[in-house]
Amino acid sequence: MEPGTQGKVICAGLGPGDPDLMSVKSDRLVRAARHVAYFRKPGRRGMARQIVEGMLRADVTEYPMEYPVTTELPFDSPAYIAQLAEFYDVWANRLVAMALSEDVVVLCEGDPFLYGSFQHLWTRLQGRVPVEVVAGIPGMVGCWNRAGLPMTWGDDILTVLAGTLDEAELQAQMAASDALVIMKTGRNLPKVARALAAAGRLADAVLVERGTMTGERIRPLAGIGAADCPYFAIVLVPGKGRRPETGAGE
Amino acid sequence: MEPGTQGKVICAGLGPGDPDLMSVKSDRLVRAARHVAYFRKPGRRGMARQIVEGMLRADVTEYPMEYPVTTELPFDSPAYIAQLAEFYDVWANRLVAMALSEDVVVLCEGDPFLYGSFQHLWTRLQGRVPVEVVAGIPGMVGCWNRAGLPMTWGDDILTVLAGTLDEAELQAQMAASDALVIMKTGRNLPKVARALAAAGRLADAVLVERGTMTGERIRPLAGIGAADCPYFAIVLVPGKGRRPETGAGE
Repeated sequence: MEPGTQGKVICAGLGPGDPDLMSVKSDRLVRAARHVAYFRKPGRRGMARQIVEGMLRADVTEYPMEYPVTTELPFDSPAYIAQLAEFYDVWANRLVAMALSEDVVVLCEGDPFLYGSFQHLWTRLQGRVPVEVVAGIPGMVGCWNRAGLPMTWGDDILTVLAGTLDEAELQAQMAASDALVIMKTGRNLPKVARALAAAGRLADAVLVERGTMTGERIRPLAGIGAADCPYFAIVLVPGKGRRPETGAGE
Repeated sequence: MEPGTQGKVICAGLGPGDPDLMSVKSDRLVRAARHVAYFRKPGRRGMARQIVEGMLRADVTEYPMEYPVTTELPFDSPAYIAQLAEFYDVWANRLVAMALSEDVVVLCEGDPFLYGSFQHLWTRLQGRVPVEVVAGIPGMVGCWNRAGLPMTWGDDILTVLAGTLDEAELQAQMAASDALVIMKTGRNLPKVARALAAAGRLADAVLVERGTMTGERIRPLAGIGAADCPYFAIVLVPGKGRRPETGAGE
């Protein structure tokens, strides 16, 4: 290969959903890209792809990276995990092959290094091809902005939790922190609400669905019934300030 | 006042430092602004102002909001806190007066609702004048991106701590979490390193100074001497994955 002819894999963080909240850099990369790849579930459009709607070149080539289907295997079963590892292996190999000649831009909602699926490709690409990752505004940041919630003051502790965690652990973490973000709610929402109530934080909790996007909905979590567990939603509890922010201190 | 003549206060989150990581929306607001205000310490340029260098209109009017000087009062003394409250009161009143006729853009590094000084103005502006806040990439996100650290996997817990916290509490929080961000390091760095060591996390800790900016420096925290406590630095410890990220689950 000739020097200077090799491309790279560029992961563009797209931010929380509103294309106006994409970074100047990602915006430029997305609009110039000849090759874009993005994760999606089979049968879905994919959130990353939705965010860039109307921004891609007419002659772009798209590579949807579809997660393996599972109907019989639990998500945490060894068999499904093996399927998933193979899926990432295959796509890492394809991206390496593509990047030999040209840049390929991988589109990722939010920030790629905060619970991002791209991380599984990133580890597999190390040492094989140049990789660049462009930071994005995380989904949770877009959500607390839209909810009008200043989240942390002074020495407040912020804890980000997955609703899939054990209820006792959720409760202990919630009681020990000041500001809370709970991701992966969905059918875990009743458990999350119980843990927040036990930790004395339910009254301050806000549920944000589709933050910054079409269909956005923001409601207090208290009082939401067990039957109403929206799929793409984050729970936020703002901190109240352990001590005043001085601004002039360090 | 005539309908349609009233301005608003717009807080533009500027992201971690690199102007290319500003959102498309903040970039547009900054370049179009006739009036910009920003916090700074007396005698300093101010980080927010540095980020937008070269982007402002030639006819812009700048309003540096200088924190009150304190040489004799501790930052957490009631007397200094009262001075600071008055400082925010005064600037909130000025912004309200300015916004009666025209938009004013308040420049804030990072994301305004994550430990942002603007929050103190935001609470004082509510109900008095329209306020809009534009999300930004938090400083910590820029830092973990530059350090090449995927931070959270699967069900990892992420905890954001201030180095000013009590050492025992730091250690307990560090031991109970997976991924860690420690802000406000500076002279607290030896304490932070001790707490990380006690929690068994020092070997994975990375110190990022001036992430995404000129003078950026990224080093393992272990082995950094007590005399070397850079002012503007964040400590990062990546998570390792509580269980695999399936991507296809929720």
